[in-house]
Amino acid sequence: MTLPTYTARALADRFGLELRGDPDLRIEGVATLGRAEPGQLAFLANTRYRGQLADSQASLVVLRLEDADAAPGAALIAKDPYTAFAKMAALFDSKPVRAPGIHPSAVIDPSARVAADAHVGPFVTVGARSVIGDGCVIGPGCVIGDDCTVGEGSELIARITLVTRVRLGRRVLVHPGAVIGADGFGLAMDSGHWIKVPQLGGVVIGDDCEIGANTTIDRGALDDTVLEEDVRLDNQIQIGHNVRIGAHTAMAGCSAAAGSARIGRYCLIGGAAGVLGHLEICDRVVITAMSLVTSSITEPGEYSSGTPLTDNRTWRKNAARFKQLDALARRVLAADKES
Amino acid sequence: MTLPTYTARALADRFGLELRGDPDLRIEGVATLGRAEPGQLAFLANTRYRGQLADSQASLVVLRLEDADAAPGAALIAKDPYTAFAKMAALFDSKPVRAPGIHPSAVIDPSARVAADAHVGPFVTVGARSVIGDGCVIGPGCVIGDDCTVGEGSELIARITLVTRVRLGRRVLVHPGAVIGADGFGLAMDSGHWIKVPQLGGVVIGDDCEIGANTTIDRGALDDTVLEEDVRLDNQIQIGHNVRIGAHTAMAGCSAAAGSARIGRYCLIGGAAGVLGHLEICDRVVITAMSLVTSSITEPGEYSSGTPLTDNRTWRKNAARFKQLDALARRVLAADKES
Amino acid sequence: MTLPTYTARALADRFGLELRGDPDLRIEGVATLGRAEPGQLAFLANTRYRGQLADSQASLVVLRLEDADAAPGAALIAKDPYTAFAKMAALFDSKPVRAPGIHPSAVIDPSARVAADAHVGPFVTVGARSVIGDGCVIGPGCVIGDDCTVGEGSELIARITLVTRVRLGRRVLVHPGAVIGADGFGLAMDSGHWIKVPQLGGVVIGDDCEIGANTTIDRGALDDTVLEEDVRLDNQIQIGHNVRIGAHTAMAGCSAAAGSARIGRYCLIGGAAGVLGHLEICDRVVITAMSLVTSSITEPGEYSSGTPLTDNRTWRKNAARFKQLDALARRVLAADKES
Repeated sequence: MTLPTYTARALADRFGLELRGDPDLRIEGVATLGRAEPGQLAFLANTRYRGQLADSQASLVVLRLEDADAAPGAALIAKDPYTAFAKMAALFDSKPVRAPGIHPSAVIDPSARVAADAHVGPFVTVGARSVIGDGCVIGPGCVIGDDCTVGEGSELIARITLVTRVRLGRRVLVHPGAVIGADGFGLAMDSGHWIKVPQLGGVVIGDDCEIGANTTIDRGALDDTVLEEDVRLDNQIQIGHNVRIGAHTAMAGCSAAAGSARIGRYCLIGGAAGVLGHLEICDRVVITAMSLVTSSITEPGEYSSGTPLTDNRTWRKNAARFKQLDALARRVLAADKES
Repeated sequence: MTLPTYTARALADRFGLELRGDPDLRIEGVATLGRAEPGQLAFLANTRYRGQLADSQASLVVLRLEDADAAPGAALIAKDPYTAFAKMAALFDSKPVRAPGIHPSAVIDPSARVAADAHVGPFVTVGARSVIGDGCVIGPGCVIGDDCTVGEGSELIARITLVTRVRLGRRVLVHPGAVIGADGFGLAMDSGHWIKVPQLGGVVIGDDCEIGANTTIDRGALDDTVLEEDVRLDNQIQIGHNVRIGAHTAMAGCSAAAGSARIGRYCLIGGAAGVLGHLEICDRVVITAMSLVTSSITEPGEYSSGTPLTDNRTWRKNAARFKQLDALARRVLAADKES
Repeated sequence: MTLPTYTARALADRFGLELRGDPDLRIEGVATLGRAEPGQLAFLANTRYRGQLADSQASLVVLRLEDADAAPGAALIAKDPYTAFAKMAALFDSKPVRAPGIHPSAVIDPSARVAADAHVGPFVTVGARSVIGDGCVIGPGCVIGDDCTVGEGSELIARITLVTRVRLGRRVLVHPGAVIGADGFGLAMDSGHWIKVPQLGGVVIGDDCEIGANTTIDRGALDDTVLEEDVRLDNQIQIGHNVRIGAHTAMAGCSAAAGSARIGRYCLIGGAAGVLGHLEICDRVVITAMSLVTSSITEPGEYSSGTPLTDNRTWRKNAARFKQLDALARRVLAADKES
């Protein structure tokens, strides 16, 4: 592979940034401040790492105006250096080209339609009435069930399952092992045995969503499970049936939303956090890691549950007292009244 | 696909329900109260949704006797409307037919046996001495290892792995990405390095069990890991080696049971709840979401751990005090003694 | 299969253990004390199970010197009976032989190299410039992307994805459904939409590591995600981008480490425990199950968070008081000052 190179001036012009330093400087790659070598671009976004500037070998650093004087070489000035860096780094991301066409091993139902310029890899199956849109990449081992739609420009990296009635929007990116559209967990008790509640709905994923590795999104019982546009799910997230997630919300790894929960727009759900079923969370709510949402949230803001980590001996003593907390509180309140 | 239709009378007769209204009414599908259109059946099980009755367009609603007068059109009377609805909805679940036969791409070990009327899809492998029973459906991309048995009428949707020595009962339903029978996590320390403890047992899954997407069930170290009949596991559940789960127990998404735990019959384990290893939980225990079971439970009932969610600022203050809880309790108790 | 048998003397000699009893005793298998039949070897490591010794049918038991007199038959004396048992049990682990060679269905990029004695199973893909080392086993349905290396003697059981730039050391064992080298979760906000931060790093896994079923390990954003030698990961673990895990550390099922966390050597991370991003944990730290590490740990030892499980009614009362904990503490401290 021949790696691309860009002049500092080309980067400044392309992304509308102010350049300080040699405009003809050639940039051949990107790196962290600490690891950068000459010819590389680095960034300073978190002032915590400002101390690394002086020793960095980076030829070019994108940073805020107030940090520009401390740059070891040339500098690009950005209001949001992290976002600017993300855009520039994309230039150096040499993604494999997946040629259009259907691998001879793929098994495509006669009623399915695959766009002429889509790539369908080895060992893929596409079920009845499903549609693969223009420019899609369906990587090796994917299973597309019946009545699914993959919108144009979407990419399923490998070994992904769309079970049935799953509609992906445009430019959706799905990572390996994800399972979208499996049966929701619907059970009813009948004379001491469980019976299955049929899961007749589907899943609708909006444009520009990203679904992490081994994440699972169940299809709805009657209506659909819905992710609005630009929702970003990390790995190993579980989304129950009939959940609705608002546009631009991001959920970190191992978090979960139980059946029929509604999460607003621009929310951030921390790692391993959980949202119980049938709750509503309004827009712009942040849930910190491993917190459990047990009632609806109607005000934007940051919410948490849990207790702090301590050494185990201290924890044991405090945790034992948690069992007496109500009794202790009653004593304190009673003593207050007396005095 | 031609969708089935049923008269109201046919539904009433088939499921032993009392009908109020036109017996010749034709029902063409099922929906929620809020979304139902004329010609559809809906249900009212949770009185919280009683207010939706008046505006519902549903032609037929299954509900309790005490709600019957409020039905907007015809009504079916049931003691348990949710269970009755589940049974009726199954009539409208148009599952794809999987024709008997082995896809030419499948790789079947010569010593394996596949029933003549089983369906084995594309890109499936079946290992030595394994047996696929009558009427089974083995979907695309499944890997059945050595010495496995899939009981009659079982369905493996797609991309499921039975690693080795896994015996599924009859009518077991497994969702994509599940891994059953991988090595348990057995390690012993030997001069500063881990050595692997061989995992010589298997997994036994009873009749009518359901295993969710990306759920993992390890095989036993010496004896077997066992799920009794009618156990229902949601997605992304982790079951360690030598766990035993009693009949009719249901576990919600992301919950886990560590090695050698024993969970009783008719238990309900909430989402992301955990059970430590070697514990016993008796029958009819409910564990609420994200609770951790750290000692055996011998009495039926509902159990919980964790702290309530609050805004982050309040949480920080209270969580900091948790570290002082034992000291605070000592002060309160000392003050009580003094007074 | 013909199962191997060993004399008691052969076992004693091979593993340097003292034998008490008949040296010509033939051992045909291993079992737990409670389930062992004549001709089988069992072990006693945990004194809690000492009471099972008298009734055990095991012909040979490996145990500590102080328990030897209680053995029902012959005994092998070991300082660490569990480790000794693990080694002996491995003799009875009849793993399937995977013959060298590439299955005709496998799709190997012309630029990839596969060692002559490696086994590549059905429906495997190997991408550009990837290398499969001597004696490797790549089971059915694995997807090896571009620029990956699998070190000699490694085994990928089935349906594993190495996405791109993943380098496995020697003798690495990976269980089904694991996804190694997917994009890290890197996002930047740009005018109300997320943009993706390119993930240009890779994953480096040291010798003798084990990766559990459905575990996910993301590749680094700029530098690599690193597991040093002999790291043992159970099932459904999530490792974020740029995490580094020290040698000989073991993590139990469903635990997680967020981006750029650094975990030391010889740590034990309990089930469903979490480590926030950018933290450092020193060597020899134990985190108990479902605890959340929210700041760096600089002292070896055992750490915990969470509250104890109680019946739900008691829990509700105590949990409600947790919301008042700071207020209660203030009252207690104020009362102390007054008195």
